[in-house]
Amino acid sequence: MENQTVREVAVIGSGSWATTIACLVAKNIIWIPYYNSTVKIYVREEEEEVGNKSLAEILSTQRENVKYLPGFTIPSNVLVETDIIQATKNADVIIFAVPHKFLEETCKCIAGRIKQSVVGLSLIKGLIAKDGKLELGSDVIRRVLGIEVSVLMGATFASEVAAEELAEATLGCSSPEVAHLFSTLLKSNYFCLTCINDVTTVELCGALKSIVACAAGFIDGLGYGENVKAAVVRLGLVEMVWFTRMYYPGAKLRTFLENCGVGDLVASCYGHRDWLAAKYFITGKVFSKLEENVLKGQVIHGPETAALVYGFLKGKELEYKFPLFAAVHKIWTNEVNPTDLIDLVRNHPAYENAELQ
Amino acid sequence: MENQTVREVAVIGSGSWATTIACLVAKNIIWIPYYNSTVKIYVREEEEEVGNKSLAEILSTQRENVKYLPGFTIPSNVLVETDIIQATKNADVIIFAVPHKFLEETCKCIAGRIKQSVVGLSLIKGLIAKDGKLELGSDVIRRVLGIEVSVLMGATFASEVAAEELAEATLGCSSPEVAHLFSTLLKSNYFCLTCINDVTTVELCGALKSIVACAAGFIDGLGYGENVKAAVVRLGLVEMVWFTRMYYPGAKLRTFLENCGVGDLVASCYGHRDWLAAKYFITGKVFSKLEENVLKGQVIHGPETAALVYGFLKGKELEYKFPLFAAVHKIWTNEVNPTDLIDLVRNHPAYENAELQ
Repeated sequence: MENQTVREVAVIGSGSWATTIACLVAKNIIWIPYYNSTVKIYVREEEEEVGNKSLAEILSTQRENVKYLPGFTIPSNVLVETDIIQATKNADVIIFAVPHKFLEETCKCIAGRIKQSVVGLSLIKGLIAKDGKLELGSDVIRRVLGIEVSVLMGATFASEVAAEELAEATLGCSSPEVAHLFSTLLKSNYFCLTCINDVTTVELCGALKSIVACAAGFIDGLGYGENVKAAVVRLGLVEMVWFTRMYYPGAKLRTFLENCGVGDLVASCYGHRDWLAAKYFITGKVFSKLEENVLKGQVIHGPETAALVYGFLKGKELEYKFPLFAAVHKIWTNEVNPTDLIDLVRNHPAYENAELQ
Repeated sequence: MENQTVREVAVIGSGSWATTIACLVAKNIIWIPYYNSTVKIYVREEEEEVGNKSLAEILSTQRENVKYLPGFTIPSNVLVETDIIQATKNADVIIFAVPHKFLEETCKCIAGRIKQSVVGLSLIKGLIAKDGKLELGSDVIRRVLGIEVSVLMGATFASEVAAEELAEATLGCSSPEVAHLFSTLLKSNYFCLTCINDVTTVELCGALKSIVACAAGFIDGLGYGENVKAAVVRLGLVEMVWFTRMYYPGAKLRTFLENCGVGDLVASCYGHRDWLAAKYFITGKVFSKLEENVLKGQVIHGPETAALVYGFLKGKELEYKFPLFAAVHKIWTNEVNPTDLIDLVRNHPAYENAELQ
C-alpha cells in the first residue's frame, strides 16, 4: 500500500454479502483517519435489472439493495459505481465479493488498471476448476492480478449482519499489518473478528463445509435421528481436516476451531442453503422451486464443490479415503442411493485410523 | 482380568442408556468366546416401582424397561439382578451407568466384594464435587474401587441406539488391550467406536458440553439468529478446550474432533435435554413441567456442571477467562441477565488471544 494520506476502499459485487460488507466498512470508515470516507461498490448494470430500473440505480437512489438485501438502508457514504475501472482504479483496498464463477473475468477487467500496492480481501466461498486443477478464490485473484489477498470466512448470514445482530468471522491473512488493516475496516460492536495466519485453511473451510452441509441435509431429508446427524457432521469435519492437510500441509488443527471451521460448519449443517437444498433433493421437492422461492438468486456451492473435490480426489486415486465427500457428489449425480450414506459412515476410514485399534 | 475361560459382564444402572448398553453387549456377547453368554444388569428395586410391580420385576418378566426405555425388547440373555453384590461379584467387566450423584454410594456397596482384576467402563457424564474439588465419574470409581476405568462418551441418544439406528461413540482408554476388549463387547453394525488414548479429555468433553448446550439453549430461547448461535457453540468449544488443557495438560486437540467432542456438542446444542431446558428457562415455561413431561426422570447436567465449573474457576480466580461457562451458571442462578450473553461473546478473550492481533 502506498504511503499516502487518503486511502480508498472498493467492494466488487452486489449480492447480499457484498452489500452488507460495504455497509459495515462504510460505517467504520468515517472514523478512520487516512481513509476516504466513502466506500465504492461496483454493481454490474447489465444483468441486474429490477422493474424498469437497474439495480445500481435503485441502490444508488433508494439506498436499498431491493434484490439481494431488501429492508436495509445503505449508508450515504456507499458510492455505487457501474464502471468497474472507476470503482477500483484508485483503490488501496479491494474487497472481492462476486460469485466465484465470475471471479476470473472480473479480475481480468481490472488487471493492469489497479494500483500494484493494492491489498485484496476475498469473501468468495467455493472452489474453482482451472486447467484440471482446483483453485481457491484467492488463488484466482493472485494469479490474475499478482496482488496479495486475505480471506474472510465464517458463519455470516448476511441479513443477520446487516441487521447488526452479533456475528463473528475469521480473517485469514499472512501479516500482522494486514490483520490490523482489515480489523480496523471490519470489526465493530456486532462483528467480531479473529485473525489467523493460515489463509488456505481458512478459505478451504469455507468451501468444504458446503459438502458436509449437503451430507447433513441428505440425512435430515431421509429422516434419520440426531446420533446419525452428529456422526455425519463430525466425520465431515474429519474429512475437511484430512483434505486440507493433504492439499495444504501447513494447515493448523486449531484453525478448524475458529468460526471459519466449526462455527460455519454447525450453522451450515443446521439450516443454511446447501443443507436445505440437499434436504429438498431427498424429500422430492423441486429444485428449481427452491432456487426461485428460497434462494432468490443466491447460489448454493455444495453440488459443484463436491464435484470438484471428487474429481481432484479421483485424479489422485484417493476418493476411498473421503467416502463422505465422494458420496455427496454421487448422490447429487444420482450415482449413489442417499441411504448408502449410512453404510459409508459405518465403514468410515476414521475408525481404522483410530489411535488404539 | 484373570486368565479364565469364562468372563462375566455386569451393568450397574437401569436408566435408558444403561438398558441400551446392556442390550448391545447382550447381542454381541453370545458370539464372543470366553464370555458367559448372559449379561447381568443391576436394577435398584426400592425406588423404581412402576404400577404395583418393581421395575426390576417388569424388566425381568416383560423384557421391557417400561419406565426409561419403553417400546424395546430386552434380549433374554440380559439377567436382571436386584442385589448389587450378586450382580457384580463374579464380574470381570463392570459397566457403570448410574446417575453421577449415586456413583460413590454405588461403588462403596461393592468395594472389596468385586474381583481386583475387574475392568471398568464408565458411561457417566457430569462432574462431581468432592471435598471442594472436581471429580469425574471415573475418578470416583478409581478412588473408591482402585480399579482402572475407561469411559464411553458421544452423541448417543439411547432410544436411537436401542432402535439400532446408526451412532458413533468415543471410548477413552489407556491401553490397546482394553480398547480391544470394549470394541469386542460394544461395536456393532449400528454402533461405531473410536478408541482414544486420552481418557480425561474424552470424559471432560462429555461433562462440559452440557454447559455449552445451555448457552445454545439460552440463545435460541432469546430468539437470536444463526450467526450468534454458531458463535456461541464455537466459543463454547474453545472454552471446553481451554478448560480441559488447564485441568489436564496432556489433552490432545484431536480428541475434540472425535464424537465425544464436536459430535456430542452439535447434537447437544441442537436438540438435547440441556439445550431444551435452557430454552424453556428463557421462554418462561415451567421447569417442573419440563422435567415431568419431557425429561421423564432423565437428568439434565447443565446447571450443576456449570455451577461446579464456575466454583472451580473462581477458586483459581480464572472465571474471567471462561465468560461463557461463568455466564451459564449465573443465568441459571438469576445473577446475570440472559441477554448479557451477547456482550460476553463480543468481548470474549478468544479474540484477544488470536494469532495476529
